Amino acid sequence: MKKINVGLIGYGTIGSGVAAVLAQRKARIKELTGIDIELKYICDKDPRVKADKRLLTRDAGRVLNDPGVDIVVELIGGIHPAKEIILAALKNNKDVVTANKALLAEEGADIFTAAKKFNREVRFEASVGGGIPIVKAIREGFVSNEINEIHGIINGTCNYILSRMSDEGCDIKVALKAAQKMGVAEADPRLDLTGIDSAHKLILLSGLSFGVFPKMDQVYCDGIMAVEPRDIRYAREMGYAIKLLAIAKRAQGEIEARVHPTLVPLGHLLANIKGVYNAIYVKGDLTGETLFYGEGAGKFPTASAVIADIVDLAKQISNPTNPINSTNPNSKLKIKKIDNIRSRYYIRFSALDKPGVLANISGILGKNNISIASVTQKEERIACLPARQANAVPIVMMTHEALESRMRNALTLIDKLPAIKKKSVALRVETL
Amino acid sequence: MKKINVGLIGYGTIGSGVAAVLAQRKARIKELTGIDIELKYICDKDPRVKADKRLLTRDAGRVLNDPGVDIVVELIGGIHPAKEIILAALKNNKDVVTANKALLAEEGADIFTAAKKFNREVRFEASVGGGIPIVKAIREGFVSNEINEIHGIINGTCNYILSRMSDEGCDIKVALKAAQKMGVAEADPRLDLTGIDSAHKLILLSGLSFGVFPKMDQVYCDGIMAVEPRDIRYAREMGYAIKLLAIAKRAQGEIEARVHPTLVPLGHLLANIKGVYNAIYVKGDLTGETLFYGEGAGKFPTASAVIADIVDLAKQISNPTNPINSTNPNSKLKIKKIDNIRSRYYIRFSALDKPGVLANISGILGKNNISIASVTQKEERIACLPARQANAVPIVMMTHEALESRMRNALTLIDKLPAIKKKSVALRVETL
Repeated sequence: MKKINVGLIGYGTIGSGVAAVLAQRKARIKELTGIDIELKYICDKDPRVKADKRLLTRDAGRVLNDPGVDIVVELIGGIHPAKEIILAALKNNKDVVTANKALLAEEGADIFTAAKKFNREVRFEASVGGGIPIVKAIREGFVSNEINEIHGIINGTCNYILSRMSDEGCDIKVALKAAQKMGVAEADPRLDLTGIDSAHKLILLSGLSFGVFPKMDQVYCDGIMAVEPRDIRYAREMGYAIKLLAIAKRAQGEIEARVHPTLVPLGHLLANIKGVYNAIYVKGDLTGETLFYGEGAGKFPTASAVIADIVDLAKQISNPTNPINSTNPNSKLKIKKIDNIRSRYYIRFSALDKPGVLANISGILGKNNISIASVTQKEERIACLPARQANAVPIVMMTHEALESRMRNALTLIDKLPAIKKKSVALRVETL
Repeated sequence: MKKINVGLIGYGTIGSGVAAVLAQRKARIKELTGIDIELKYICDKDPRVKADKRLLTRDAGRVLNDPGVDIVVELIGGIHPAKEIILAALKNNKDVVTANKALLAEEGADIFTAAKKFNREVRFEASVGGGIPIVKAIREGFVSNEINEIHGIINGTCNYILSRMSDEGCDIKVALKAAQKMGVAEADPRLDLTGIDSAHKLILLSGLSFGVFPKMDQVYCDGIMAVEPRDIRYAREMGYAIKLLAIAKRAQGEIEARVHPTLVPLGHLLANIKGVYNAIYVKGDLTGETLFYGEGAGKFPTASAVIADIVDLAKQISNPTNPINSTNPNSKLKIKKIDNIRSRYYIRFSALDKPGVLANISGILGKNNISIASVTQKEERIACLPARQANAVPIVMMTHEALESRMRNALTLIDKLPAIKKKSVALRVETL
């Protein structure tokens, strides 16, 4: 089994996440894919960085010039020297993984041209939508589709601010302060609020979907600074939410690429994406409407995306002759019997409307260790029952979490009560 | 460039979709991936089937025994002879793509064991979630994650019926008839309504996520037959929607695998999945919450998934030395200027509350070919304006679709009107 060596350049939040997960999941990845991925270098120029000393170097040149390194992971961000590092890696016959949306959006042409020239790949799953595998979905999952449009909520900071303004009626300054306090907006939030970060990501989505990377000055870009609480309120009255959307779509043989606050119908899933979450709504000509939702940033979601790219490249490089069967039929995990699950339950009893019935029911539940969260007796007839049972009424109950076997036992006993006129309906509740 | 030959067995709805798309998108796939995929056989035992005569055969043996065939696509459905066909393909050194969830769920152990033995792969993206690349997302995108739970709406028929019962208050028989009339439920809908189809798919999702494929009798499976309109109503009063969920999750070192009608909080995205759509909500330990949404069935969404599998296998087989750069920087599509886009607009004017203002505004809009869909003058002060403008009120307008350049022109003119006291706010509306 070939070992694939990775050189990590940039050991900040995401870099340290990648290193930690690569170490912790090394065996798992090997088992799933048949590939042995070894972190050979951690490179960071900051002398205060703490990492495994056998891997740590301050000299990116050591990583870039080591012929043993197969994949360079660039996580330093910014344009320079990230660009020079990536170009050197490609020239030295290494594949590249990056999360650097600004670089790819602004200098992507040079980088992808170099990749082509040197027969290497540049992967960038982590640069759009954090942990959401949207690049893979478009590039591989939708390989046979013509993508017609993409509408993305791809900046968590703006979505958090707009959600707060919407929920609380506060203005953008208040919401921004709250976001900064929560750690979901930077001290200098301009890249986010102006829509520039969304535009960077939109350029990449457009490149993936249409084969054309617009330049920054071709992307119309309006931030959320002008949105007032009253706009959110009026929009809602008209049946819309206001979201910062990044939009790329085909229109009359051209591509529209724009970022701006947008009214979205309240019934649409995009209107229901709350807080820091991201969602990318993609229409392919074969698949129709699809939507991909998840955390758009953060140490571990982003690390997850970086590692997926590393593993994909490692597969390509090593092309293992034993095939990749990540569906392993030999796992030792047992399947839990339904009797042993715990759940909350919605129960509807059809009971005679007479004294003592509820006491009987709740007595049986109590003996089975089932605690009632709420109960309502409905003042309505049960239509389909014969006349002699016509005074049965629905009693609707929500329980706290209980053991399934106890619930079944209780229901069997309850359904035998003379006052119960129809099999009780019990549905499980998932709090999610 | 190596040619990858595909033998298609089963030429029904999905099979004919796959053949049509493979033909139509051949050049595109070649351009994107560097791989030449050739449909070599169309095999169907039904003598009434019409297809390209040079490809058509009634004899599956011809396909299975042709050493020139690299990938066999099994789309006949059912257990036999689909199982025998797949096993023969694997034995004859061919990779396999299938959409056959029932077969993999019931006989997957034999099939995956054979794949391992013969060093081949069995891909099944189309068997869960139709056009949604959920198998790829879990298997590749989340390769470094421990998946903790999956909650899926993975049967479009049941979701359509429950949506209709919820929207119209009708009972399941009425909703089922409507579904059959719409072509979203089969004449014999038992596999769907009993939850068995969902259980088949859940077994595959569980195998992908946890490495363990439960057997059918280990999956608790309750259909939607017992759900009454009143349950949907009571649940809604308590803040829940009722959905048929397929659930697989880790719990105390075991796996829960169950399909049943479930109460889902109304604010959750899963509660907002309407009609025939599918959604799979996946929690990974690194990615956190994610959701994948799209059409769970249908000719072209399913064909899209089958072809994605074919292309993936073709890449692995041919391992082209020129790398796969599906991000092509040389596309000739132009970026549309923002002036030339068409959109609906929400506009908020801050106008003096006096006669003739609305006439002036709408006059300017009319001259710019902008038609008003609705207009409301709000009876509220604009707080942040100085006292001399304190009688300015917001006028909120929704337009029909208009050209951006005309809108800008109109706004410039309107903002010059003496009665307009603040820059007007215009936001674009996406109908989606």
